Amino acid sequence: MKYFLSTILFLLLNMLYAQNTKSPSGTIALDFKLTPSGQPSYVVKYKNKVIISESTLGIKLKDKPALNVNFEIDNLKNSSFNESWQPVLGEQATITNHYNELVVALSQKDTHIKMNIIFRVFDEGVAFRYDFPKQKDLNYFIISDEVSQFNLTEDHKTFWIPGDFDSQEYVYNETLFSAIDTQKIDLNNGIGVKSISGKTTIQSPLMMKSPSGLYLNIFEAAVVNYPIMHLDADVKNYKLTSHLVPNAIGDKAYLQAPCVSPWRTVMMSDDARDIVGSKMILNLNEPCKIDDTSYIKPMKYVGIWWEMHVGKSTWDYAGSQNAQNAADGQLKPTGKHGATTENTKRYIDFAAKNGFDGVLVEGWNVGWEDWFGNWKEDVFDFVTPYPDFNLDEVRAYAKAKNIKMIMHHETSASVANYERHLDRAFDLMKKYDYPAVKSGYVGKIIPRGEFHDGQTMVNHFNFVARRAADYKLMLNSHESSRPTGYSRTYPNYIAAEAARGNEFNAWSNGNPPMHETILPFTRLLGGPMDYTPGIFEIKMSYYDKSKTEQVHTTLVKQLALYVTMYSPLQMAADLPENYEKYPDAFQFIKDVALDWQDSKYLEAEPGDYLTVVRKAKNSEQWFLGAITDENARQSEIKLDFLTKGKKYKAIIYEDAKDADWKKNPIAYKISTVEVTSNSKIKLNLAPGGGTAISFEPIK
Amino acid sequence: MKYFLSTILFLLLNMLYAQNTKSPSGTIALDFKLTPSGQPSYVVKYKNKVIISESTLGIKLKDKPALNVNFEIDNLKNSSFNESWQPVLGEQATITNHYNELVVALSQKDTHIKMNIIFRVFDEGVAFRYDFPKQKDLNYFIISDEVSQFNLTEDHKTFWIPGDFDSQEYVYNETLFSAIDTQKIDLNNGIGVKSISGKTTIQSPLMMKSPSGLYLNIFEAAVVNYPIMHLDADVKNYKLTSHLVPNAIGDKAYLQAPCVSPWRTVMMSDDARDIVGSKMILNLNEPCKIDDTSYIKPMKYVGIWWEMHVGKSTWDYAGSQNAQNAADGQLKPTGKHGATTENTKRYIDFAAKNGFDGVLVEGWNVGWEDWFGNWKEDVFDFVTPYPDFNLDEVRAYAKAKNIKMIMHHETSASVANYERHLDRAFDLMKKYDYPAVKSGYVGKIIPRGEFHDGQTMVNHFNFVARRAADYKLMLNSHESSRPTGYSRTYPNYIAAEAARGNEFNAWSNGNPPMHETILPFTRLLGGPMDYTPGIFEIKMSYYDKSKTEQVHTTLVKQLALYVTMYSPLQMAADLPENYEKYPDAFQFIKDVALDWQDSKYLEAEPGDYLTVVRKAKNSEQWFLGAITDENARQSEIKLDFLTKGKKYKAIIYEDAKDADWKKNPIAYKISTVEVTSNSKIKLNLAPGGGTAISFEPIK
Repeated sequence: MKYFLSTILFLLLNMLYAQNTKSPSGTIALDFKLTPSGQPSYVVKYKNKVIISESTLGIKLKDKPALNVNFEIDNLKNSSFNESWQPVLGEQATITNHYNELVVALSQKDTHIKMNIIFRVFDEGVAFRYDFPKQKDLNYFIISDEVSQFNLTEDHKTFWIPGDFDSQEYVYNETLFSAIDTQKIDLNNGIGVKSISGKTTIQSPLMMKSPSGLYLNIFEAAVVNYPIMHLDADVKNYKLTSHLVPNAIGDKAYLQAPCVSPWRTVMMSDDARDIVGSKMILNLNEPCKIDDTSYIKPMKYVGIWWEMHVGKSTWDYAGSQNAQNAADGQLKPTGKHGATTENTKRYIDFAAKNGFDGVLVEGWNVGWEDWFGNWKEDVFDFVTPYPDFNLDEVRAYAKAKNIKMIMHHETSASVANYERHLDRAFDLMKKYDYPAVKSGYVGKIIPRGEFHDGQTMVNHFNFVARRAADYKLMLNSHESSRPTGYSRTYPNYIAAEAARGNEFNAWSNGNPPMHETILPFTRLLGGPMDYTPGIFEIKMSYYDKSKTEQVHTTLVKQLALYVTMYSPLQMAADLPENYEKYPDAFQFIKDVALDWQDSKYLEAEPGDYLTVVRKAKNSEQWFLGAITDENARQSEIKLDFLTKGKKYKAIIYEDAKDADWKKNPIAYKISTVEVTSNSKIKLNLAPGGGTAISFEPIK
Repeated sequence: MKYFLSTILFLLLNMLYAQNTKSPSGTIALDFKLTPSGQPSYVVKYKNKVIISESTLGIKLKDKPALNVNFEIDNLKNSSFNESWQPVLGEQATITNHYNELVVALSQKDTHIKMNIIFRVFDEGVAFRYDFPKQKDLNYFIISDEVSQFNLTEDHKTFWIPGDFDSQEYVYNETLFSAIDTQKIDLNNGIGVKSISGKTTIQSPLMMKSPSGLYLNIFEAAVVNYPIMHLDADVKNYKLTSHLVPNAIGDKAYLQAPCVSPWRTVMMSDDARDIVGSKMILNLNEPCKIDDTSYIKPMKYVGIWWEMHVGKSTWDYAGSQNAQNAADGQLKPTGKHGATTENTKRYIDFAAKNGFDGVLVEGWNVGWEDWFGNWKEDVFDFVTPYPDFNLDEVRAYAKAKNIKMIMHHETSASVANYERHLDRAFDLMKKYDYPAVKSGYVGKIIPRGEFHDGQTMVNHFNFVARRAADYKLMLNSHESSRPTGYSRTYPNYIAAEAARGNEFNAWSNGNPPMHETILPFTRLLGGPMDYTPGIFEIKMSYYDKSKTEQVHTTLVKQLALYVTMYSPLQMAADLPENYEKYPDAFQFIKDVALDWQDSKYLEAEPGDYLTVVRKAKNSEQWFLGAITDENARQSEIKLDFLTKGKKYKAIIYEDAKDADWKKNPIAYKISTVEVTSNSKIKLNLAPGGGTAISFEPIK
């Protein structure tokens, strides 16, 4: 009888139309059920409207039966979670992690393999992951495919970049979902290595907007020991299916139970600010695993970097990309090398004079003569400086001026070589007092056949962060897989590039004015971006009359990016001599904070505009950043975020009346007004422009 | 006119029937010519008889025209070379390197690519390599195939193993060349990972014997930054063509000019002793690159190893190959762990008592619970001991007894993981006074898709040797690519397994009695082998009545192997308690030297027998080793190698009259006689037997 009852109960569980789980506020609802063939499926509703229609879930294994059908529900478990935590550095001092959870314990008939699906429903969206418990019938396994569906209901406006296994450094395409076509994009875009995988395969984070005004974002969190998920779009039926990045032999992931997949996330709101301000991705990552975080500090820095991008100097010492020089073993200087001891001292002087924390020097070490495009394994050793760069002298000079040096490790994507040298490279950093490293991965990956977004490389980037933590070093990776919140777990992973950064403006078709209005809805959800803003000499014709390239913003928008592009590591990317020409505008870069007590997104529309105010940590200072796309924009901002009763001096950096990113990008005006929380400020943004404001409490 | 003359000269050069180069003694002759299509080709004659008939040469490039036709000769250069050099450790104190060289400078019409072919003709054979000089038209390039032919003239008797990209641990097949068929071999042979590439693809070193009695060996030397060469056999036409081992995506080698290929070698003689005693492979390698070689010392060692092979104990601590235990993070001891502090002390005691240098301990470090067959990346960290192995205690105990500990690094072929940890692993060795490491590569390679014999792994093994040299450590690799003389350049690479070692006798169909008579003609040409001889308890039924496995030799043949299998690193592989039962026989292992003033091969026939005598370095002691295959053998040896006028005490270890590897393997007798250089000794070898003799000068 007892058996009979439990059987009935079991059947009931399986037959239930759906298990319903709501977000804490009740706005979002998730329904789970098994299809008649025993396939897990889910539906997501926002304010009772279906946003994700029935979408099936499953994993395919190599040399084993697929885990997508024939499942039975063993158990269902609901729970709620609500806690706050303090990030070491962040957009806000305290982050709330509040969700309702449903754990569906499944077992597959015949194979007896157990697989759980864990759903979490937040007020900004839903997340799910696959969980493989410890079990007799599944120990080591190879994932050949993940078949998670995200079925949409309408032909949304979509901001997409192609599913490239090796790069996310694309301009965003803004089309209807039905018009996604990676073969139509302009490939003359400055990206060095391209591995586009299919006509309608695109990348996440994928930002969309429904015809009726719902904002929708599909992404992932906590990608650890797993490849990056791209998305196959069925453009006719508005369906998306996970597309895992393969390794050299076509496998996707090597796992050992017990283990979990990354979280798949669907964020949604009828207010875009809920998405751009969401901390859901961070919340889905493991808490901080570093005991002593005292070395993890914000850094504002300058560096020997932009001068190479604009052609003033070179990374190499003896002839760029010309191995014929280096092969002799006799490096003959060209005289254009940027990373000299003397030039470094000049940057240190500038940094010290203007209150910066650090100086980055790229091109300091031997190898640049044949670093790019050769798929060469042994390029750099990360410890041997060029003859004109004196490590001891630089250390002493920086120390005397209280400046921290930032190490640079370009790997040219020869990861095998980097890992081989990593301990020695970090030992050198400790010896010479470098607290942070910027790494680079330009080129085709070695081990050959691997991709930037495959499991091998995801593991590499995470490994470097962990090993850096061993040495109490901070990491800022460029050309890495895009982050998915791992900086919560390893906050020494202080920033990454992993999207199209400002540098593309120097030597390619560049970043259109809308670019920076999308990144906060996509790339920045996963963690801080080292976008390297602050370019004052906007047009490259300044350096070379024949050049037509330019930064696609006004000067003031470059200032605003320090607020809109959250990062505790921020470069003032332009040359010292250029800043010295505009000391009043430069003041904002000197003033702006890097770590925040609180952040409020005041206005947001992906692809169009963004306005955010942030309060500096343990301070009464506030900073505002407002940016627009190619269209001029006016708005009025209420200052009700300021502390009531307090007076503030607001220094307003805005585009001059006739400013225009293309025709007149540098023109700006600066005004100072006294304001309170009752004040309003009118913002006037030029085409491709912005506004930056600092609010200083008056004592 | 000058131009006209040089044109005539040039045409003459190209039209010359052949460039002839002879060995110093004149016995071997090499003819080079271009075919009418401009393809490089060569012919080799021995005593005026064609041994290698016209064979063409060339390299195919990825995404570039093939470098095998349309060549013209730019220049021809003949030279002679004769020098002696002293290996740090070796079969002889001084090695002569004597050859005549022909450098053919070629350039390809249309592409203007320059490629040289360098031929060296020694008295034991010929060698050639491809040389890519620094040039404008060839910088970085990818080799997609090497098409070097070795065309034979007869249906030779051939000792072959299949062309397996991952293993050379095969039993040798003895067939006619025309009968080579890798699909006919018994695959139930104990080899863990097999990647056999084709029906008639076989490995080098390839030992052959012509119907008329000429011994012929095809091999390679100085494989550096290049994959291992296997051989495609055209069994109908007696032709062999190089077959390079590919990487994960099918490419063969990534090179940058200037660079060279490895040497391809063809050794030949009508006396088999010329081949087994040849130092041609070492001579073709670069001289020693280590300045201070004082730490490179011979080592005789025992170890916690055979007891795992015979099932007495285990490598793992908590359940062999059962990740379920380890996944808990709670290791529960099975009680069968071999590498305990106590057991290690027992081996140290035994080593000290018997005058050994070192003790190897396998299974000392965490990871063995799920090390094998899982293609898992993070298995070992090479620094964390099991709870019952105390590094400090072992160090102190070994130091007090003047014993050196030998480190063990099983990588389970997760090379990426090993390289990541290598500096830390070597740091630990230095901290705990381990002068040498035995490494292991059991399993499928990670980076996944790579093979043990590909360029990536060749580079890895050489890299580990070089990095070990940084730390002044000696290296002994197991399951590595077979050596090709790199130990001349890095003599700290003191030994390798890289062929079917003695261990297979413990748990597989084992090594047939002929096995050890072939290895000196094949595997050992490339460098010392850690064969781990010295098994006294021959039959595994000694440990477990149900077992039928056994060592396929007599006990005395195990003694003889210390002389026939040259290695400066020699294990006494059996258990201490087994040696203590046979102290008189064990005396030979205690006495035998490891480093030699001179070696003389007295009798040699591949697959049948081998007799060698060696004089200990800086000593008047001589040691003789004689072995036979499954057939009993008698012979008489002249002792004219002994110093004239000196008297020696010869201790003769021989098979007992009724000894037989299968029926009565342990039976031996020991006799002592006084001898001089005028004496003769009759050798009586049982089926699968041997003889070992030590000659001690009488003062």
